[in-house]
Formats: sequence, structure tokens, C-alpha cells
Amino acid sequence: MSVFDASVYRARRASAVELVNDRAMGGLVIGTGAEFAFLTGSFASSHERLTALVVAPDGLRVVAPLTDIGSLGLGGADDVEVVGWRDGEDPYELVAEVLGGGEVGLGSSLTADHVFALQARVADTVLASDAVAELFMVKDPLEVEQLAAAGAAIDRVHERAAALLVPGTTEREVAAQLEAIILEEHERVEFVIVGSGPNGANPHHDFSDRVLAAGDPVVVDLGGALASGYQSDCTRTHVVGGADAAPAEFREAYAVLERAFDAACAAARPGITAGELDAAARDVIAEAGYGECFTHRLGHGIGLAGHEQPFIIAGSDTVLREGMAFSIEPGIYVPGKWGARIEDIVVLTEGGVEHLNTTGHGLGEARA
Amino acid sequence: MSVFDASVYRARRASAVELVNDRAMGGLVIGTGAEFAFLTGSFASSHERLTALVVAPDGLRVVAPLTDIGSLGLGGADDVEVVGWRDGEDPYELVAEVLGGGEVGLGSSLTADHVFALQARVADTVLASDAVAELFMVKDPLEVEQLAAAGAAIDRVHERAAALLVPGTTEREVAAQLEAIILEEHERVEFVIVGSGPNGANPHHDFSDRVLAAGDPVVVDLGGALASGYQSDCTRTHVVGGADAAPAEFREAYAVLERAFDAACAAARPGITAGELDAAARDVIAEAGYGECFTHRLGHGIGLAGHEQPFIIAGSDTVLREGMAFSIEPGIYVPGKWGARIEDIVVLTEGGVEHLNTTGHGLGEARA
Repeated sequence: MSVFDASVYRARRASAVELVNDRAMGGLVIGTGAEFAFLTGSFASSHERLTALVVAPDGLRVVAPLTDIGSLGLGGADDVEVVGWRDGEDPYELVAEVLGGGEVGLGSSLTADHVFALQARVADTVLASDAVAELFMVKDPLEVEQLAAAGAAIDRVHERAAALLVPGTTEREVAAQLEAIILEEHERVEFVIVGSGPNGANPHHDFSDRVLAAGDPVVVDLGGALASGYQSDCTRTHVVGGADAAPAEFREAYAVLERAFDAACAAARPGITAGELDAAARDVIAEAGYGECFTHRLGHGIGLAGHEQPFIIAGSDTVLREGMAFSIEPGIYVPGKWGARIEDIVVLTEGGVEHLNTTGHGLGEARA
Repeated sequence: MSVFDASVYRARRASAVELVNDRAMGGLVIGTGAEFAFLTGSFASSHERLTALVVAPDGLRVVAPLTDIGSLGLGGADDVEVVGWRDGEDPYELVAEVLGGGEVGLGSSLTADHVFALQARVADTVLASDAVAELFMVKDPLEVEQLAAAGAAIDRVHERAAALLVPGTTEREVAAQLEAIILEEHERVEFVIVGSGPNGANPHHDFSDRVLAAGDPVVVDLGGALASGYQSDCTRTHVVGGADAAPAEFREAYAVLERAFDAACAAARPGITAGELDAAARDVIAEAGYGECFTHRLGHGIGLAGHEQPFIIAGSDTVLREGMAFSIEPGIYVPGKWGARIEDIVVLTEGGVEHLNTTGHGLGEARA
């Protein structure tokens, strides 16, 4: 469902055409998914049959199967020529014939079958991720409003999470309850992670039949999508039976994690690079001796995709700008024992960050 | 969840290595999705972070993010070396270093970001769809059993569908009930199409707020996936209030459609091409004057993916073989008026076809 007025998508597409001309590109070819939805308001998908938005120097075209054209949902897109193709026809020719000369950028969601078919018909193709990210990385106020609503929605889920972590229940039982609560607050569930004890040391563990016991640290990482498509993503770590029941070494590490999280939030401001922001948290963890236990990047952008640019990762020279929305999520993982992670979505403001998640980070704070 | 014994996946991977050597390829790189699940039993996904099965001339490797390696679910795959990579490291180098010389085939599900990164490190890449399809197109008895179970599951849903098509209800209300029933019989819903009256003329219409009226033809196309991942896909067309309430021209066209369906089933046997099978149905429809109204291919393979090779499409010279499973789904669509489609999944046998869907095709037959 397109959440914004047709004029919003038309303005985004105009920016895309401008970008193509500014860079003297032959065009952009955007497959279905978050990038397509950003530019059209449509979450259409036609699977192995090509549906794509073609941004050419002199205009816009959507190429889609005749079987799907009635369901595209491009309401009000009078700046876009919609061209249908029939099974057996060659949709890639329909794409190629409107492209200009010069490099043609392919959106990151196009699958290999489409990429190779386009490469057979277009001389000079490149990955368009960075170009397209220029269009969506800085969120406008309408988008921040949606992300804030998603943040508030997942906060309401997290407020009910700690009370579910009862000794004797399994991760799977907790996850099933959390899925139901996420659905009360969102249009759909994106993921549920309930990582107790040693399972918490696997950052992308989902859930298992492991039975919770008093003293277990539990990583609870939850995400959903609103009807508008904008996503939530927030992690809290709890201890079954309350913080005092946890091993002392866990509580020490968790204090380090809180300091790392706060250091990143303090460092975040327009003008620093994503690599510098990653380092702000990583340095705190490394200095405390846990450097090897923080096995992933600090964060990722979020919007219509759960993970998108900017990626907050060591070595990145992407300069952070006001309006960018991303996660700050340091973690400490001790294999065989436990894991801990704190994650908020933040929006970069002139003076620092606005947190879109607001439940407490303390091990005891979110308990019912 | 891997539904079969570890030895099944090991044998499939051995066939993949053999195929690579037979064709003197440098290897295959298979991204997550149905192809990966076919070869590993794992439906893992790591989104923008690369997870891939690398089939090299001299062995097998899975390259996956360290954050996800604990959730891969490759139980018992002692023929596969699992190599983790950490955020900031280059997973594509880990892929490239085990490939041999010669053409490297990329699986169709790899997205453009991965394709371009691999193309920057591997001299000669090609799309591997056709090569990989050689591995999965012919289903073994264990897979046919799963597809038959999926077929029986969706048949039980269809048996309850006609009774829901009551004048005054909306397509959306019917679809919500059908989703719930699909979930009673499957692990997840893949799609629900309830196309009444003119909406039926859009083959991939999903559902709308249109209110059903007596005499409306309604296309009901339903699909789900079992816990094993094997999918169902079946279409029936009904008339609200019973066949006699439909316009005469619809009933005439529907009789043509039944003949076209039966002609395709009669023609289907090992040795004919997919293009010839498409023609067997299309000719009947064209001779009756509805050629322009059958706007899509006759069918598609089905397995762990809802649409996969072989595609039953005009011009295809893919030779059909015993054990292939695919849909036969002719349709007639009259824009602004109505649509009709009949779809069964069939498995090719020595003597013809076995139908995995068995509810009646007659306009009155499936009524409660």
C-alpha cells in the first residue's frame, strides 16, 4: 500500500531522473522490493517474471508482465509509462530500448537471472546500490514519522517481553507469544530472536527448544513492518529471574556494553563517517578486553528494508548526514556461555541522535 | 527444516560436483533460497550478507556470515566445509579461492549486489539456472510424496472454497477465510487469488473489496507450503449461485477451457517438449476463437519454489521427462467481464500424467 501521496513518489522519481542525468548514466533499472517501493509506493512482486522501474535520462517506464499489470498499484503515477509484456516476449528488450548511452545501474534486488539477461542486452552495467542509496538514505519527516511509529510499536512489544521469560518455558514458546504481540502492533513479523544462555552467543540464532533457567541472560531482538512497509528493529537483553541472578562476568560485560552504546550515541553527529561511529563503540569494548567478542558491524540503515545503507561498519567512509536512520547495536558474545546486545534505531539530528526506541537498557528496567 | 535424511542432500551435492566436472566448469555458486535448500536442506537466509554454497570441481564449501553460521542447519553435511566471514571481511574472496578455472555458474537467486561482487573476482561467470535445473527438475519418489501431500492439502482447502462464495461477501472476506484454511493444512500461505467477475480477467489479481453477486464467475487460485518447503498451487473456477447463473458466453468458454486442459493432459508424456505441450492446450483455445484471451504460458515446474523449471511455454525445446512436476493451467480472460482458469499440478509418468490435485473441474462439482 502506498502510504504517501502520489506527489511524494513523483518527486522521488524526479530526483532519480536528475541523478541519472547528473552522473551522465544510461539509466537505472530497479527490480521489485524496497527500492521499487520507495520510488513507486508499490510492493508488487512478479517473482521470476521481470517487473522493473526503468529510470532513463529522458523519462520513466515500468516494465511488467501483462499478468501482473492490473495489480501493480502505481496509482497516480502519470509520469510513468507502463509497458506490459506477455509470456514468451522479451521484457529485457523493453528495458533496453529506453535506456540512454553510458553506464546503466542495476538495483541490488534484481536476481541473477534478470542481471545476466540485462547484461546480454546492455553494454555497460554496474551495481546501482550506492547511487540508489543517495535517494533513500536521508529520510524526510514523513518517513521519520513512520519509523517513529514502528519504533513505538516494537517498544510496546518489548515492554511485555521480560515478563514472558519465566524459568521452565522454552525459547520457542516465548517466541510464539512475541510473534503474536508483534502482530498486534504491526502488519507483519519480520523476525524474532530469543537467544538464552549459550544461544545468545549466536547473534542470528532465532529460537530453539532450550528451556529457560534462572540466571540465563536472554537476547531478545524483534522486528516487524507497519502497513506502510516501514520497519522496526530493537534488541534488549534480560536475565531470567532478574539481573542479580546472572553470573558476575556477564554483568561486568553488560556494563561495558552499555558504555559502548552510550559512547556511540555521544559520537554520532552529521559529518562523521560510518567507520568512525563503528569505532566509537568498538574501542570501548576492545579496551575492556572484549574486542574479539564483538563479531559484527555496529549497525545498519532501516526504512522499507530492514537492512539498508548506510552500513555502520569498520572502514566505511560514508559520511553520516542529518536525517539518516540506522541501528546502533553493539554486542558481546562469549561462545558456549551467553551473549548480550543493545539496539536502538536512531535518526541523526543536527546536534546528535534522536532515539526511536525508548525502553530502558538496564537489565532490570524493562521487567514487568 | 530438512525433511529428508542427510544422505539425500549429500547425494544431490555429489551430483552437483559431477555436473561441474562433466561440463568442465570452474564451479557453481548457489545463493540462499530454493536451490540452496534443495542441495542442503536449509532455508537459511542472511539477506544482504552473502551465504552461498560453492560447488567446486574438487569439493564443496558453504561461505556464510559468522553471525549466521550457528543457524545454518546443515546437519550431517560432513562433505561440506563451512567457512565463516566477519563483517568487514570479503566473502567473495572466500568463494573465489576454491573455484576452479573455466566458466562459473551463478545460481538464479543471487541478487545483483552479490553478482557484481563475484563478477569483479571471477573472470567468466554465467547464469546457472539451466545447469542447476538439471539437478532438481526430475523429482524423486520422496519429493513426489511431498508434492502429493501438498496437493492433497490444497485440495482439502478447495473443497471448502465454493461454499464461501456467497452473494454479498467481498473477495477480501473470502480470501481471509481461505488463508485461515490454508494455514490449517500447510505451514504457510504462499498466495490467495479470489478474482470475481471482471477481476478474474487479471490472472494475478489477488483480492479486493468487490462484492460477490449471483452469476459472477470467480477464479480461486491457492497455494501454500508444507513444513518441508514443498509447495501446492491449484486453481478452480466457480460461479456464485451455481453454474446456471453464469452468462451463456462464460459457460461456452469454460467448456473450451476444459477441453484445452484435457487435451494438454492427454498430450503430456515423456519425450515431448514443453513448447509442444503448451501448444496442445493453446491450439484448442485458439481454434475456438479465444487465442488472444489466453495471455500466459501453460504452466511451470513446482517443488521447493512455487515457480521453477521446466516452464511450459511456447517455443521451449525443453524435453519433458518422467518425474517432472509442473502445473497445467490454461486460462481464458475477457477484459472487463470475467476470467476462468483450471490448474492441476501433475507429475509426468511413463504413460502420461499423475494428477496431484483431484477435486472436480466442473463448475458445479466442488460446491458444498
